[in-house]
Amino acid sequence: MSQSDNRLTHVDERGEARMVDVGAKAETDRVARAEGLVLMKPETLALIVSGDAAKGDVLAAARIAGIMAAKRTSDLIPLCHPLMLTSVKVDLLPEPALPGVRVTATAKVSGKTGIEMEALTAVSVACLTVYDMAKAVDRGMSITGIRLLEKAGGKSGHWTAGQDE
Amino acid sequence: MSQSDNRLTHVDERGEARMVDVGAKAETDRVARAEGLVLMKPETLALIVSGDAAKGDVLAAARIAGIMAAKRTSDLIPLCHPLMLTSVKVDLLPEPALPGVRVTATAKVSGKTGIEMEALTAVSVACLTVYDMAKAVDRGMSITGIRLLEKAGGKSGHWTAGQDE
Amino acid sequence: MSQSDNRLTHVDERGEARMVDVGAKAETDRVARAEGLVLMKPETLALIVSGDAAKGDVLAAARIAGIMAAKRTSDLIPLCHPLMLTSVKVDLLPEPALPGVRVTATAKVSGKTGIEMEALTAVSVACLTVYDMAKAVDRGMSITGIRLLEKAGGKSGHWTAGQDE
Amino acid sequence: MSQSDNRLTHVDERGEARMVDVGAKAETDRVARAEGLVLMKPETLALIVSGDAAKGDVLAAARIAGIMAAKRTSDLIPLCHPLMLTSVKVDLLPEPALPGVRVTATAKVSGKTGIEMEALTAVSVACLTVYDMAKAVDRGMSITGIRLLEKAGGKSGHWTAGQDE
Amino acid sequence: MSQSDNRLTHVDERGEARMVDVGAKAETDRVARAEGLVLMKPETLALIVSGDAAKGDVLAAARIAGIMAAKRTSDLIPLCHPLMLTSVKVDLLPEPALPGVRVTATAKVSGKTGIEMEALTAVSVACLTVYDMAKAVDRGMSITGIRLLEKAGGKSGHWTAGQDE
Amino acid sequence: MSQSDNRLTHVDERGEARMVDVGAKAETDRVARAEGLVLMKPETLALIVSGDAAKGDVLAAARIAGIMAAKRTSDLIPLCHPLMLTSVKVDLLPEPALPGVRVTATAKVSGKTGIEMEALTAVSVACLTVYDMAKAVDRGMSITGIRLLEKAGGKSGHWTAGQDE
Repeated sequence: MSQSDNRLTHVDERGEARMVDVGAKAETDRVARAEGLVLMKPETLALIVSGDAAKGDVLAAARIAGIMAAKRTSDLIPLCHPLMLTSVKVDLLPEPALPGVRVTATAKVSGKTGIEMEALTAVSVACLTVYDMAKAVDRGMSITGIRLLEKAGGKSGHWTAGQDE
Repeated sequence: MSQSDNRLTHVDERGEARMVDVGAKAETDRVARAEGLVLMKPETLALIVSGDAAKGDVLAAARIAGIMAAKRTSDLIPLCHPLMLTSVKVDLLPEPALPGVRVTATAKVSGKTGIEMEALTAVSVACLTVYDMAKAVDRGMSITGIRLLEKAGGKSGHWTAGQDE
Repeated sequence: MSQSDNRLTHVDERGEARMVDVGAKAETDRVARAEGLVLMKPETLALIVSGDAAKGDVLAAARIAGIMAAKRTSDLIPLCHPLMLTSVKVDLLPEPALPGVRVTATAKVSGKTGIEMEALTAVSVACLTVYDMAKAVDRGMSITGIRLLEKAGGKSGHWTAGQDE
Repeated sequence: MSQSDNRLTHVDERGEARMVDVGAKAETDRVARAEGLVLMKPETLALIVSGDAAKGDVLAAARIAGIMAAKRTSDLIPLCHPLMLTSVKVDLLPEPALPGVRVTATAKVSGKTGIEMEALTAVSVACLTVYDMAKAVDRGMSITGIRLLEKAGGKSGHWTAGQDE
Repeated sequence: MSQSDNRLTHVDERGEARMVDVGAKAETDRVARAEGLVLMKPETLALIVSGDAAKGDVLAAARIAGIMAAKRTSDLIPLCHPLMLTSVKVDLLPEPALPGVRVTATAKVSGKTGIEMEALTAVSVACLTVYDMAKAVDRGMSITGIRLLEKAGGKSGHWTAGQDE
Repeated sequence: MSQSDNRLTHVDERGEARMVDVGAKAETDRVARAEGLVLMKPETLALIVSGDAAKGDVLAAARIAGIMAAKRTSDLIPLCHPLMLTSVKVDLLPEPALPGVRVTATAKVSGKTGIEMEALTAVSVACLTVYDMAKAVDRGMSITGIRLLEKAGGKSGHWTAGQDE
């Protein structure tokens, strides 16, 4: 376990879901970075990156969708606190070696609770948008490797993927 | 390519994003089934499944979140058509062999366009909810293998994962 | 029991929440009518109805809020199907005898599933809006008697409050 | 009147709806507690509490719905300010003596304006969800007694139901 | 008057807002086309169109925002019916002669009520997005000339801007 | 140019859309005031203002719609930051000289980023609501002159329409 807690914070002593009370936490600057991959056939990736305009628009649509989803995280994830994001950045990088698209998102906030979920939600919805726009030519695509890369700020401090595994 | 089209349907001749015009399509009964996995440490899975109530509430929260997300798919994915789902079912199965939770979603509609995205969105948000509820004890979890398992209905007919790969 | 079913339709054989599959149901014209009351001090009601403009705006705000909430019912109630309302009407009647405001809502749809929840949600949110607008002068108000008055259409046919109680 | 104001704060001098300007108010820790009841036939309550899983899922669905609704209060109630809830807790207690389910919600925030509406909205939507999940067997249920139990924080200070009535 | 009605359809005999009952209307194929302009300084337009990527992303963001807003029209406009859009297309054309950007939107549906509001909402939000992305360099921009260009389908038939003025 | 910047803040060095990072900005009291016009036939304006109740409800509906839209600005405009509005005020003034309705909105916040977009969105949606409610009698209405009148607070300080043009 990465923490001394050995119970789930979102479930109370009776086992019922609850939103954790963060009222007594200090406001600190927080950042979270997450990534995910959309794996596809090489021909599908070729279609996505072919033509400047087309490339711009598929990836731009996914980027916008990811940014907007980050802002709706607490609407989607039942026990997430509402947060006032100060920054969200979503990058989509076509990688022929996968073949597919690597999506990364970085979210920042000055608040009482972390923003891992905002970064992960941005990645997930950007991946789903890529899938949607290419699904007519490749229904076998998959979305994989969605994970937190790094977080900083808050009581639990700095965390980087791989350091405690 | 699984289809004869060699261009992206959501991008027009100028490479600009558009919602595909489905006005002339027939209404048919459609179904889509998707899955995804949340991989975690064995201790984390043990916490999720320990205690009847706790198990009920973590998985119940994720199930509800997935169902509600399916209904908001067209709000999240820019070029998805609004649809009137007739059914959504989300299942979460703890699998010690992963170790982790396998999420499957089945969505149905009688409409002019497919509901793959609704099933995939339900899976994604249910996975994110599991992550959220257990992240305080295991930040290294990952969400993986989100993919369509099967679809039926519509002009492109029946499709099963693996058949054209 | 008003029906022969002796299990909950929104819970499957394993006791898990699900959206009922209405795919095989016929589309019929459906209507539902619901009501609720906001009880308050006589002075509070007097403030609400004093002055034409004020009266107009408090009740108009609650009416609009109720209409808009009806359209978001499936977003709020986890297992409600999305519906394409063809009509919603919300009435607010100040009643000195309560003293308070009686809220009624009538919703209509041509669809595969009932719209009781839309009518009840419209009533609930209109009542909450009245509470919100008057709470600074009367925190002791209560919202009560929210119930279905009548429904028609669908397999279960016509139902009127009181007939089977 | 519980306050010296003898006009509605959400209506301006012309009688027009407005969002109260809270810019000059201090941020204080605020808490609000509300309750409501869903009254039903004894057989209906028996169905809801029969079987561990079923009980878990009906009440879990309503609890999640109430928590999520609290976060959307300012989206539903026209003149409510957006707030960053630090905590929401929704409890559902089956009470054979009613017979029915008692719903209570506690909401907390550190902010410039009260959170009574968030607690009341959580209660209302949790009650509506119970109604929805059991309506096929008992359309005559009613939702009643939705009221504020207690509030603390802010200029108007501590208030408990009954103290000024 | 373009129609024989001499009262507002969205206000009942008591002058109260209502959603028009469209239950008895036939489903027909409907289309609406609208436009609007964002006027700006020539330097601002030059920035928007300079560089392929930048141009792509500003206009792509506005196009996506307009498409997504069309789908949320009934959430924003109190008395609009929910609709299942079959197609939305948003075009943004930089016009040095204005100088500014001309936004047009075409929306289609097969339904019981018109989709003028969806086309107009898409145009409005696309214009607001252009304003947002360029406001740091030109706060004096204005959004103007938002109007319906054409509609077809439904009882009132075909209408083109200018024909009855 | 009203500022020394000669690039768009919402587009990064690669020309990709991003949400500006406002984490390091100070929280200041901010206010923005915007306006817009709905132009219509004189007979249409006469209908809107005829009858006290009708007048109240058409303008009240648009006022409520504008206030609610201001709270959803960051949901609609892709790169807008979420904000906790402390006040929104929307006024609708029938002006026979236009003929039409002049809509003004004033929004306030204590935050790290401006609220011009909230004021402009409130105006736009209030105008669209007037259009919606009167469109059956006058499809040729137009929405025009949507612009920022004034802003104060933040690093860029006080700005009034016309001062730098």
